[in-house]
Amino acid sequence: MNNNIEQMKWWGWGGEEIEFDMDSKPELWPYVKKVVGIKSEDDVEFTAPLRFEDIEMPEQKLNPQFIESLKTIFNGEQVKTDKKDRLIHSYGKSFRDLWRIRNGIIKAAPDCIIYPETEEEISKVIKIAVEHDVVIIPFGGGSNIAGCLEAEDANGRMIVSMDLKRMNKVLEVDKQSSTARIQAGAMGPFMEKQLNEQGFTLGHFPDSFEYSSFGGWVATRSAGMQSDIYGKIEDMVLSVRMVTPSGTIVTRTVPKSSNGIDVNHVCIGSEGILGVITEAVVRVHPVPDYRASYGYMFPDFESGVKAIYECVRTGSVPVVTRLNDPGKTALSIAFKEKSIPFKEFLSKLAKKYLKSVKKFDLEKVCLMLNVFEGDKKTFFETKKKVNRIYKKYGAVNLGTDPGKAFEKGKYDFPYLRDYVMDRNIMADVSETCTVWSNLLPLYYASFSAIEKAIKESGRAGFVGCHISHTYFTGASLYFTFGCQQNKGEELEQYLRIKKAVEDAFMNNGATLSHHHAVGFEHQPWVEADVSPTGIKAVKALKAGLDPKGIMNPGKIIPSSHTHEKWGLKKEEKVELNNK
Amino acid sequence: MNNNIEQMKWWGWGGEEIEFDMDSKPELWPYVKKVVGIKSEDDVEFTAPLRFEDIEMPEQKLNPQFIESLKTIFNGEQVKTDKKDRLIHSYGKSFRDLWRIRNGIIKAAPDCIIYPETEEEISKVIKIAVEHDVVIIPFGGGSNIAGCLEAEDANGRMIVSMDLKRMNKVLEVDKQSSTARIQAGAMGPFMEKQLNEQGFTLGHFPDSFEYSSFGGWVATRSAGMQSDIYGKIEDMVLSVRMVTPSGTIVTRTVPKSSNGIDVNHVCIGSEGILGVITEAVVRVHPVPDYRASYGYMFPDFESGVKAIYECVRTGSVPVVTRLNDPGKTALSIAFKEKSIPFKEFLSKLAKKYLKSVKKFDLEKVCLMLNVFEGDKKTFFETKKKVNRIYKKYGAVNLGTDPGKAFEKGKYDFPYLRDYVMDRNIMADVSETCTVWSNLLPLYYASFSAIEKAIKESGRAGFVGCHISHTYFTGASLYFTFGCQQNKGEELEQYLRIKKAVEDAFMNNGATLSHHHAVGFEHQPWVEADVSPTGIKAVKALKAGLDPKGIMNPGKIIPSSHTHEKWGLKKEEKVELNNK
Repeated sequence: MNNNIEQMKWWGWGGEEIEFDMDSKPELWPYVKKVVGIKSEDDVEFTAPLRFEDIEMPEQKLNPQFIESLKTIFNGEQVKTDKKDRLIHSYGKSFRDLWRIRNGIIKAAPDCIIYPETEEEISKVIKIAVEHDVVIIPFGGGSNIAGCLEAEDANGRMIVSMDLKRMNKVLEVDKQSSTARIQAGAMGPFMEKQLNEQGFTLGHFPDSFEYSSFGGWVATRSAGMQSDIYGKIEDMVLSVRMVTPSGTIVTRTVPKSSNGIDVNHVCIGSEGILGVITEAVVRVHPVPDYRASYGYMFPDFESGVKAIYECVRTGSVPVVTRLNDPGKTALSIAFKEKSIPFKEFLSKLAKKYLKSVKKFDLEKVCLMLNVFEGDKKTFFETKKKVNRIYKKYGAVNLGTDPGKAFEKGKYDFPYLRDYVMDRNIMADVSETCTVWSNLLPLYYASFSAIEKAIKESGRAGFVGCHISHTYFTGASLYFTFGCQQNKGEELEQYLRIKKAVEDAFMNNGATLSHHHAVGFEHQPWVEADVSPTGIKAVKALKAGLDPKGIMNPGKIIPSSHTHEKWGLKKEEKVELNNK
Repeated sequence: MNNNIEQMKWWGWGGEEIEFDMDSKPELWPYVKKVVGIKSEDDVEFTAPLRFEDIEMPEQKLNPQFIESLKTIFNGEQVKTDKKDRLIHSYGKSFRDLWRIRNGIIKAAPDCIIYPETEEEISKVIKIAVEHDVVIIPFGGGSNIAGCLEAEDANGRMIVSMDLKRMNKVLEVDKQSSTARIQAGAMGPFMEKQLNEQGFTLGHFPDSFEYSSFGGWVATRSAGMQSDIYGKIEDMVLSVRMVTPSGTIVTRTVPKSSNGIDVNHVCIGSEGILGVITEAVVRVHPVPDYRASYGYMFPDFESGVKAIYECVRTGSVPVVTRLNDPGKTALSIAFKEKSIPFKEFLSKLAKKYLKSVKKFDLEKVCLMLNVFEGDKKTFFETKKKVNRIYKKYGAVNLGTDPGKAFEKGKYDFPYLRDYVMDRNIMADVSETCTVWSNLLPLYYASFSAIEKAIKESGRAGFVGCHISHTYFTGASLYFTFGCQQNKGEELEQYLRIKKAVEDAFMNNGATLSHHHAVGFEHQPWVEADVSPTGIKAVKALKAGLDPKGIMNPGKIIPSSHTHEKWGLKKEEKVELNNK
């Protein structure tokens, strides 16, 4: 299937050649080398991934009765057991996933991959999976970076990856109500194309948009870059269908209800541990008439935060707000395409500095990117109001060039990771959310914690942060970090840094993730986040809807060995004190 | 306690005198008589409620060990076992509740009422309740109209009503983040007063505001009349604390998260069946500078609906939108205070009719009430935009008089019920929600269903409806209905009419309730609403967090005998087909 090859190319793993064109970004690699302390090209250590042919897969368990029963449901094309399909469905796209696959560490993989085309097929599969005690892991785009796809079963059962990509239709658009019924397997661009053809947009554009699925978004409580106006995916869902081992949950397509505990929220965020989300009805929006992106330069992060705060509080909210801190600003500028005349606007900016009374400290400046959209009136009014507020906080308007660069490259950033991993550099992200009064304290604390952890690993490194999701009561913080890897202890080094940032989130009143899910990788912090009794509630749902535990086992709910499996030593076990 | 007496007065039951001043509304009673077909005052049948002294309470079960243990937790003032406390906590305020209490039908009542002052006390009580197998029913304002407080236990255990009114504080306001931490037992006015003193408002004003509690709102997914701008209560909650028999759920105060299944939503809407919500942190708003209410007259319901739809779609949304259908319009006009010069605006209106090209059909006109609020700019701009849209749909602006009348009497309407019940007239409400494309079809179908059911009971009656909660994708429909009661079969007659309207909601793609909860009274429809597997999920939570079933038993989750207990015959059992 063509989609699979595309997918293998994504972020460059699996022995395919990396497509990321570093030549078009001539200032990027020099910048990266500088921040991670590489003085000359001779000091770069190349660490190529294993070729696909050289990767050894774990032993394949195929339950013969189950396979026999599958044949009564599917045609041959819908069931795969080959190496390539198994490998593709083994992991998501976390740093840990990529590192393992590059190094051929495939301790667990699905034994069989199925491609259902209808909810009825899914129901039948789950029925026979229960009967034969076979594990099912729902698979959308495969872009998860929290270990949601980890194909491991503590009981050693056969594992089936259920790839939903054949269920990719926008089934129905209710234009009057602005709702759309969409199948779980629809990948971002194809879904959006179908909606656009009817004059609508979902308004949900996560960084993974190109390779993530509608069902995956619902299952992980995803957020797109336009969430400030359109909300997170959970704010968009009116109803959902989810096939569980105990039957199919079907809710009604109504804007709001008071019908007891919200059953939609049993499905949303369930990360495949209760069942397979097959479709949902969501709020959509007419494609706006006007859209444009602008860049601004703020003298420092704090003034940028103040400006966003004032925008939110006065209802002057662009559809995208992305404020980079100084580190992320420098990286973003280095990331620019040569085709975009950044030099030009930078010199313009320099002139403005000279004219300006306040002289910007170039080590502290912060790039803000905004997208405005809407009908003519909303578009121009919002832009005007935002400009007025930004000016108050000392921002320089950079015009549409940075915005164009942003729109052009908005999904490109993750590709950089493979490039640097080829050069023995770790790069990862961790993001969270907090209330306004805690935003800057959390930023400083988390930033220091990452810096310290990198330093303790004996390396210089990069730490940057951006704000990309804002609310009336607070905002997200999205950290990007990287450093050279220590030979022979690459994963341990990474885990210590990852632990430092997640610990900082927990110790400073934030959440383990704003939009990346718990999966396996965030489990050490989930009880601290939602309390041990909160996890009892999740366990109760699991016991009630999936009593044999066949649905995506080992996710969300931590076990007594989570910290060890994760790679922590016992004494490093995360404390569960809830603040 | 003064509060209790106040509460007994509310809606007039319990042998206290009705406070509702019909003299101030001289056109109301004649109108009611007309619509229910009473030709002369001589035909009015007076049906006074039993006096408090004459009501017989069911046998009191007091588990001596439990009572002994209670003494180690509480002082004497915090534990009550007297008749008045038991009676007050027996029922909510549904028609069924009022009818039973008026007629002295108290088949079940709590045996003991406790007034905790801290979460620690609540934890201790729940621990000993588990130990001694005693039932706990959380009690806030006692205003629920879905049977959420029904004090019945299938296992005949001792029942404790846990009245939270002593936990009534706004504990903390984070002004920068616009969040407030509020105790569950805070009643509307006192909570709002505390917030106002700090310059904030929750913006949550359900019709029951005067006698309902913050915790009750969270536990029932309540909606206030300003929900169009401020959201339903579930949209406001950032974090929650709920004491369950399996421990205390504590979530983090963050605007949004992706930490698995949303544990906040395990608590929100749980109607006391999993535990006691002790406090929550919610989004609040600075008290707006400007506020004013306006009335408009639309030529018919359909044009009013179209106008609201256009307002919602163009982001021109008043803080309150209440569109009455012709029946509810006539009732609202009859409900006017004599002190408000309605006559004047009606004559003004009449003049405008004459001038107007289109002549209104007075049988079809619909009264719209709007409240505008915000900073100066928002206030005036929204008003202007709304006026422009309303004009397009033929509305006549009635100015601020009807708005003033609305603001003055906005919580008064429920009191009318006792007045008419004293006169052998049933009056009740049922409300729901649907998407825009289904709004008018649902309105016609439900309206006809109620009319038909009243007629089949051999009576003339009143059916009216209003829209009071709007969303981008749809709106609520709130039906009010009433008729003379048939002697000796009052409840059966009522249940048939109630069944007709809820069946109409289910058969026409709507939900069982938009903001009144499931409780006991809506159970026959809950599986049709959220699907049998959805109810399995709720059961799973119940089994996991409350394994002994001590928390508010018999609510939300239907049993095989629900329809009979509810008063339906077997052949009338509600079908569970989900559309």
